[in-house]
Amino acid sequence: MIPRDHPRYRSLVTREHLAECARSGVVSWEGLISHGRGEAFDYLLGEKTSGSARRAARMAAALLRTARHPVISVNGNTAALAAKEIALLQKASGALVEVNLFHRTPERVAQIESLLRNAGAEVFSGEAERLLPLSHDRAWCRREGMYTADVVLVPLEDGDRCGVLTGMGKKVIAIDLNPLSRTARTATLTIVDEVTRALPLIAESCTSLTSGECRDLIAALDNRAFLREAQDEMTRGFTHALD
Amino acid sequence: MIPRDHPRYRSLVTREHLAECARSGVVSWEGLISHGRGEAFDYLLGEKTSGSARRAARMAAALLRTARHPVISVNGNTAALAAKEIALLQKASGALVEVNLFHRTPERVAQIESLLRNAGAEVFSGEAERLLPLSHDRAWCRREGMYTADVVLVPLEDGDRCGVLTGMGKKVIAIDLNPLSRTARTATLTIVDEVTRALPLIAESCTSLTSGECRDLIAALDNRAFLREAQDEMTRGFTHALD
Repeated sequence: MIPRDHPRYRSLVTREHLAECARSGVVSWEGLISHGRGEAFDYLLGEKTSGSARRAARMAAALLRTARHPVISVNGNTAALAAKEIALLQKASGALVEVNLFHRTPERVAQIESLLRNAGAEVFSGEAERLLPLSHDRAWCRREGMYTADVVLVPLEDGDRCGVLTGMGKKVIAIDLNPLSRTARTATLTIVDEVTRALPLIAESCTSLTSGECRDLIAALDNRAFLREAQDEMTRGFTHALD
Repeated sequence: MIPRDHPRYRSLVTREHLAECARSGVVSWEGLISHGRGEAFDYLLGEKTSGSARRAARMAAALLRTARHPVISVNGNTAALAAKEIALLQKASGALVEVNLFHRTPERVAQIESLLRNAGAEVFSGEAERLLPLSHDRAWCRREGMYTADVVLVPLEDGDRCGVLTGMGKKVIAIDLNPLSRTARTATLTIVDEVTRALPLIAESCTSLTSGECRDLIAALDNRAFLREAQDEMTRGFTHALD
């Protein structure tokens, strides 16, 4: 039992939860390591949403709201950390929710789909085919799902799929705590924030933005500026921490 | 199989090795997450030893060389990543090697001890007692080992044990990639570097330093300065990465 007054209580509880999800198979071994990487960057952000991440989340809402066929791609870590938040964002945005895994087995897909359904999401799970030009199992997706999507939200993504999706002409929204990652730099839009904080912000803006605001936001989209601001934020995190 | 020409080849191979060690029980689930945190900070260092880390490693050698009863404390991650390097440092420094675990079971202790012995280390494994004022299992150590040590090297440590050891009047040398961590800030000396790079550097200096050099080094020990330099290094890592 982690004592409630531990200075890192929330982070330790999340770690225990993820370790449990690794035991049950929802989260992969690599998923645990990648969570640790995220923790380090979030620590530099002071574990709170920055002003620029807040604006990026509004921008993400504008992209989802104006999409013809938006899809939210969910992997093991996202399901383990934020199944409820995914369900809420689905309601606010009308996007399809589709499971896409690097370490794919039919059992793991079913397990993660049922976790999402229990949290209130409607999961799109038609027949998967090997449709994306990738050598690994993330190539598997559904023709009527991610394959024909025009906007794809990929929380906690690895780098090469993101590049493949933008190469196919899709707009990709990434949620990634590392502003230097390949994903962050390849995505159309990157929200540098922790996933359970970012998803509700996107959902909120999906409800509140007007069509005119969506248009204006998208016209001003500059991912490089968002990344630079996130990086400045983290640099300040370093500079202040030792004083 | 990870292709040899992958830009992150070394890091991916290490991850796979750690995942295997987690399967076998040597590394804990939380150990995988903490490896990920380290990866993020090492990335900011450009995955190489900085000048200040090199000087910190010399300082560590001076502390070990002048110690009355030096002990190297080894946990699951350290054994999985650097058993050979631990054995070499033991030869160069004459320190005791003792296993100390947060997630302690007799089986895990035995498993890690045999991994270290197979790598050439002599492991001190007398009867463990609950001797350190800690609420968790790291409290267990050996009376003739860590408990009576005057200098303890703790690679990949968690924060509260480090504070307890310095509180007992011991000099604690930490190897920690996060210059902002409680461990880094509580230790007598922190080497902000990756463990398989840092350990051979300490071993090298253990062999080459004269007694006079050891004395002079220790007289000039300023951990805060080392941490500040590491932090500057990482800040530069951020600033250059997006250019």
